[in-house]
Amino acid sequence: MVNRPRLEWSDGKLRYLDQSRLPHESVLIETDDHRVVARSIRTLGIRGAPAIGVAAAYAVVLAARACGAGPEQARHCRDAITHLSETRPTAVNLFVSLERMREQLEAGASAGDADLSRRLEAIAVAIHREDQDACARIAALGAPLIPPGSSVLTHCHTGALATGGGGTALNVILEAFRRGSVRTVYVDETRPLLQGARLTAWELVQEGVDTVLITDSTAGHLLKLGRVDSVWVGADRIAANGDVANKIGTYTLAVLAARHNVPMYVAAPVSTVDLLTVSGDGITLEERGSDEVTSFGGVQVAPDGVRAYVPAFDVTPHTLVTALVTDAGVVRPPFGETLRDLIGQRPRAEVNR
Amino acid sequence: MVNRPRLEWSDGKLRYLDQSRLPHESVLIETDDHRVVARSIRTLGIRGAPAIGVAAAYAVVLAARACGAGPEQARHCRDAITHLSETRPTAVNLFVSLERMREQLEAGASAGDADLSRRLEAIAVAIHREDQDACARIAALGAPLIPPGSSVLTHCHTGALATGGGGTALNVILEAFRRGSVRTVYVDETRPLLQGARLTAWELVQEGVDTVLITDSTAGHLLKLGRVDSVWVGADRIAANGDVANKIGTYTLAVLAARHNVPMYVAAPVSTVDLLTVSGDGITLEERGSDEVTSFGGVQVAPDGVRAYVPAFDVTPHTLVTALVTDAGVVRPPFGETLRDLIGQRPRAEVNR
Repeated sequence: MVNRPRLEWSDGKLRYLDQSRLPHESVLIETDDHRVVARSIRTLGIRGAPAIGVAAAYAVVLAARACGAGPEQARHCRDAITHLSETRPTAVNLFVSLERMREQLEAGASAGDADLSRRLEAIAVAIHREDQDACARIAALGAPLIPPGSSVLTHCHTGALATGGGGTALNVILEAFRRGSVRTVYVDETRPLLQGARLTAWELVQEGVDTVLITDSTAGHLLKLGRVDSVWVGADRIAANGDVANKIGTYTLAVLAARHNVPMYVAAPVSTVDLLTVSGDGITLEERGSDEVTSFGGVQVAPDGVRAYVPAFDVTPHTLVTALVTDAGVVRPPFGETLRDLIGQRPRAEVNR
Repeated sequence: MVNRPRLEWSDGKLRYLDQSRLPHESVLIETDDHRVVARSIRTLGIRGAPAIGVAAAYAVVLAARACGAGPEQARHCRDAITHLSETRPTAVNLFVSLERMREQLEAGASAGDADLSRRLEAIAVAIHREDQDACARIAALGAPLIPPGSSVLTHCHTGALATGGGGTALNVILEAFRRGSVRTVYVDETRPLLQGARLTAWELVQEGVDTVLITDSTAGHLLKLGRVDSVWVGADRIAANGDVANKIGTYTLAVLAARHNVPMYVAAPVSTVDLLTVSGDGITLEERGSDEVTSFGGVQVAPDGVRAYVPAFDVTPHTLVTALVTDAGVVRPPFGETLRDLIGQRPRAEVNR
């Protein structure tokens, strides 16, 4: 994994690859400034719902370490939490992580805790470790759903870089590949920012997987030809009823998979489940700037005067999801009750913002 | 139309804009060499099924004009026809045009006709004029299908540049806009070559239409939100049963439109109907090179060692098509018999390759 360092915390610094510049530039960022982390989240230098959650937790630790103990430190941490919470609206992991940090902060603040930053660090490290464990369990639980000889299709990027651990949907695919079950992985390039072409294809090729890149609108044709045995995606938020917010294009894939009787699997840690959001209708979907579509690599592709509509996510209704593959188990419809049970079992249960 | 010269024939030369370089460079090509035209068709400098048909006809005239009368001239024309027929496999208009030119050629050759190139030119001009007339009729017949206040979605490019006349699907949309019926046009950027972003958005903005560019995988989300009232596409070939071969991504749009009960209209001249192809299964779908997806504007976007699958077209089953809007009338299901009747009525009836 020499060429692929993951999110790494040591000596009071957070280190990560700037994903927005991969695979052509490997820019390793090392920072002790929480504002740098917030900017990386906003600009997709750090992306993937679980990775955002882990990085935000460490960023709060960085804020705490920047001040001496006392009321000023607590205020500085609160400001950092507010700032971090405004970076991206859809991934629930961000808010869950920040809430856990806030709880610890307020407990420490009320106790006049001189050792706040150390205690915050312990929580951040725990969040990170929980995510690593979740990724490993998701892979182990999901891989058997891919029978030998399978060709699978995936969208966006859900590998190691997108989490604090080994990844979600892509981790399942890689685990199945190591077990000898995967013939070919079709990768949606995933416009506009090409996470599929840049990141997913990169991870797969490094692992020696037979990888075929397609434009997003080729997926329907492939499914119609019968070349895809299952579709695998991650999630940025899963509502209480099982509706899934994920990268724009996921809904389209789900509709196509259902039409062709191909299983549509969503792999995500239970920390992505948000019981306070009743259904997908309640999920705020981030809109990005026009220039992500009207330009490419700094070069304008559309004529002057054209605006673009650039939702980063869409919502897939639970009726189109074959199963949610979580670290706590593979959940099949009806999702509602099972999801509530899972949340009760997970290591950290609170999902309150 | 100063900035938008169409395919133009005069003084024994063919003039056209190199579509592969629009909108950032307006390169006007003027040639009397049929091989230049063939290369432009292959590299998408000339694209759009009707435009390909018209340009190929003129190219045969160029071949004839390059030789003095006699057996050598006929042989040179036959070679040119063979060469042109190998440029792109899917658009039927190419083969229909070349067949008409070949008929004229063989009639002249057997008669020892000293005036062959003049007679070939008359056929090419007729093919061009028929296409112009077809575009105008398609617009007039299609526009009433767009009720006032409509927002429509279109894929790829089907405007003036794609035909010898005013266009097909985009011509319908523009005619409806001029009648005051169109609120917003959503344009799929249409990966990999971005004909939607580069050409369709360009034509619409020049006409003052409210234009919103989207990535191809945003269309499903928009349809789900209820923001699209009808979907309009062109066709590269329509089989006898009404199955439609068109730009990759059309099938996906048709599936999504059907799911959301939004009409899916296919606008094309009857010259695009190929009665010899029983269904879409019989249509050869062109595959393009990997680099159209792995690179962008000459810059590699995917990592080394990744191959791409790049079909240029897909097939939409007739069951997903609301109506075929042709120059001979608006055809609704069941298509088979009506299409056979239409072919019987059109100015030139032969579709024999």
